[in-house]
Amino acid sequence: MARIVMKFGGTSVADIDRIRNVARHVKREVDAGHEVAVVVSAMAGKTNELVGWAREVAPLHDAREYDAIVASGEQVSAGLLALALQSIGINARSWQGWQIPIKTDSAHGAARISDIDGSDLIRRFGEGQVAVVTGFQGLAPDNRIATLGRGGSDTSAVAVAAALKADRCDIYTDVDGVYTTDPRIEPKARRLSKISFEEMLEMASLGAKVLQVRSVELAMVHKVRTFVRSSFEDPDAPGMGDFDNPPGTLICDEEEIVEQQVVTGIAYAKDEAQISLRRVYDRPGVSAGIFGPLADSNINVDMIVQNISEDGSRTDMTFTVPSGDLDKALVVLDKARETIGFDAVQSEAGLVKVSVIGIGMRSHAGVAATAFKALAEKGINIRAITTSEIKISILIDGAYAELAVRTLHSVYGLDKQ
Amino acid sequence: MARIVMKFGGTSVADIDRIRNVARHVKREVDAGHEVAVVVSAMAGKTNELVGWAREVAPLHDAREYDAIVASGEQVSAGLLALALQSIGINARSWQGWQIPIKTDSAHGAARISDIDGSDLIRRFGEGQVAVVTGFQGLAPDNRIATLGRGGSDTSAVAVAAALKADRCDIYTDVDGVYTTDPRIEPKARRLSKISFEEMLEMASLGAKVLQVRSVELAMVHKVRTFVRSSFEDPDAPGMGDFDNPPGTLICDEEEIVEQQVVTGIAYAKDEAQISLRRVYDRPGVSAGIFGPLADSNINVDMIVQNISEDGSRTDMTFTVPSGDLDKALVVLDKARETIGFDAVQSEAGLVKVSVIGIGMRSHAGVAATAFKALAEKGINIRAITTSEIKISILIDGAYAELAVRTLHSVYGLDKQ
Repeated sequence: MARIVMKFGGTSVADIDRIRNVARHVKREVDAGHEVAVVVSAMAGKTNELVGWAREVAPLHDAREYDAIVASGEQVSAGLLALALQSIGINARSWQGWQIPIKTDSAHGAARISDIDGSDLIRRFGEGQVAVVTGFQGLAPDNRIATLGRGGSDTSAVAVAAALKADRCDIYTDVDGVYTTDPRIEPKARRLSKISFEEMLEMASLGAKVLQVRSVELAMVHKVRTFVRSSFEDPDAPGMGDFDNPPGTLICDEEEIVEQQVVTGIAYAKDEAQISLRRVYDRPGVSAGIFGPLADSNINVDMIVQNISEDGSRTDMTFTVPSGDLDKALVVLDKARETIGFDAVQSEAGLVKVSVIGIGMRSHAGVAATAFKALAEKGINIRAITTSEIKISILIDGAYAELAVRTLHSVYGLDKQ
Repeated sequence: MARIVMKFGGTSVADIDRIRNVARHVKREVDAGHEVAVVVSAMAGKTNELVGWAREVAPLHDAREYDAIVASGEQVSAGLLALALQSIGINARSWQGWQIPIKTDSAHGAARISDIDGSDLIRRFGEGQVAVVTGFQGLAPDNRIATLGRGGSDTSAVAVAAALKADRCDIYTDVDGVYTTDPRIEPKARRLSKISFEEMLEMASLGAKVLQVRSVELAMVHKVRTFVRSSFEDPDAPGMGDFDNPPGTLICDEEEIVEQQVVTGIAYAKDEAQISLRRVYDRPGVSAGIFGPLADSNINVDMIVQNISEDGSRTDMTFTVPSGDLDKALVVLDKARETIGFDAVQSEAGLVKVSVIGIGMRSHAGVAATAFKALAEKGINIRAITTSEIKISILIDGAYAELAVRTLHSVYGLDKQ
């Protein structure tokens, strides 16, 4: 007997038939004797409809009203799933965030969970009841509903799992796990049976949209063993109820991964833009002068490369921003030109950042050199490089994205079983 | 400066344009210096959609889950109206039933309001804030959402008005008031400027579907002056903001109605069925023997007429039920035949009950005789009659419904201004 949190996203509860299918997944775990809490998103499309209405009424809307409107979607799907479970003989009830309560901070529209009181849910597990919990939302200090931002239901699920001290948090989604790279680009991509929290965090941040980044952070902090698995498989297919090895990818502490590969996966992020400031006066505070105004305008600066210029008193500063923020960034920089002091600004949009991720890099030299050599052999020009302990990110022209991903996937042996 | 509760039904908030129109109605009252609470229904069609899903998942569904699902509709419309008000410069916030709280009893799906704490709303009136309240719902003792049954938003509005000691409760709907009879049957029907609570109660019970019966009862008990008026008129048309005489019908205490007419209106209820039990043994407890089993089967018996038969030991018992319940009623009676003891049962569906309503009847004799004479002159056969202090109801064949309504409307002078 174990305690399991199961999370189902919007496509998994998109209509009544799919909700019934979700109920069968839940029944399988209940029948196996487990205590189960289910976290659900809104039916696919509903959140967009609600957001659309709010925007139509008031483009700059009060986040508290936005939250009240948008949170209704999960209220509906949670109630419907509870009914579907009851109709197949399972004792179940729905819980809205304010009823548990799932407490959040006061940042309406992008709130963070501060505390979850799991005592009522745990008591009802003892009575054999399944809890169906609305994802994506909680109760803010002002006694109003707060939402966690798009994709927040993953975070809800991991937070509920942590609060309930669940043995496992299963994230059911429309893919069947985490892959070594995007299978749409590299058909030889393989599903990982395990990946460490740290690696998953890099994969998630870099565009592998299986899980919300914050949910992985939370799982890492609270050491919540999290499975990514498919909700579209037959709930009663062989192995689906295997407690230790369900089909999917386990995101876990690195200590649990015995045979650690050097490189675990290749991620990529599209639509990066590069900005270069030429001949910036190299004096103390110059970085703050550039990046302060950009941060104030909510522009997310990613890779930063600084080169000393010939005469030593000037420097070239190169960095990336999302392509969508490029125009705004150029306006901000133009305004700050006097303060910063630079000769010229150059920019280019439509670039791609390809990343090699693996905890094994920590103890293996030469991983970066392998990447550079492989890309050079394919004639791919490297525009910028950043590295961390477990990641190498390389900025290249967008046209080479697929070639670079496939090249790196192959050179680190990820194609092979 | 007064305190006003304004209620808008589903057709009045059916889309974003109509919600903006509602906001203009509210702005008119705010600009006039009034304190305003607005009660809203779900956008037209939304409640049906939600109910449809719940039924699809589980035909016999848990009323608590049904409530959680269905109540989401008002959450959305209240949030959207608050945003629409904010966007035209009005300080507004939405309130869900559980936030105020509007407390109800535990009868999920058909709950009754037990208590409303208006203190928070009144405090915020002092800060110039408009309260937008979700109709149709409240918080049950189990800390879960309870809904009041279809049409419950009228009741919410009157209850909020009573709790806030509002000077007026304006029910905005898709008609512009209460008429002397149904204008679709009698084009000469006139809009009443005033009608007493008692009369409105009879009108509402008898099929004039302007207001939910319970909301009228509540208004009568708490003496809430209630206006029925149209949400589709131009919010800024002349006279719309007239505090004492807005366009519409005032439902009020009879003392407020100076020139009381003998007859105020003619109502009708279609689809009545008549059942006659022939030669019932006339002994103590026979009525209980007949109507007990019908009540146990949730069949609503309306008009009851008992005649003593020739020999005195037997009686004929005639009564009406809704046509839709006729078959069920006949089954119930057949099962109880031994216990009751009767010779034969006769029934006929498709009948109509026409009612003459007016507080003035109390002090005027001959009102009933006028009706009987007028109907007889048109050759309309009367099948049964019931009377109360302020009402005469007459059961006739369905084919004569329109003729009877027009005849009675004319004979009591309701055609004339």
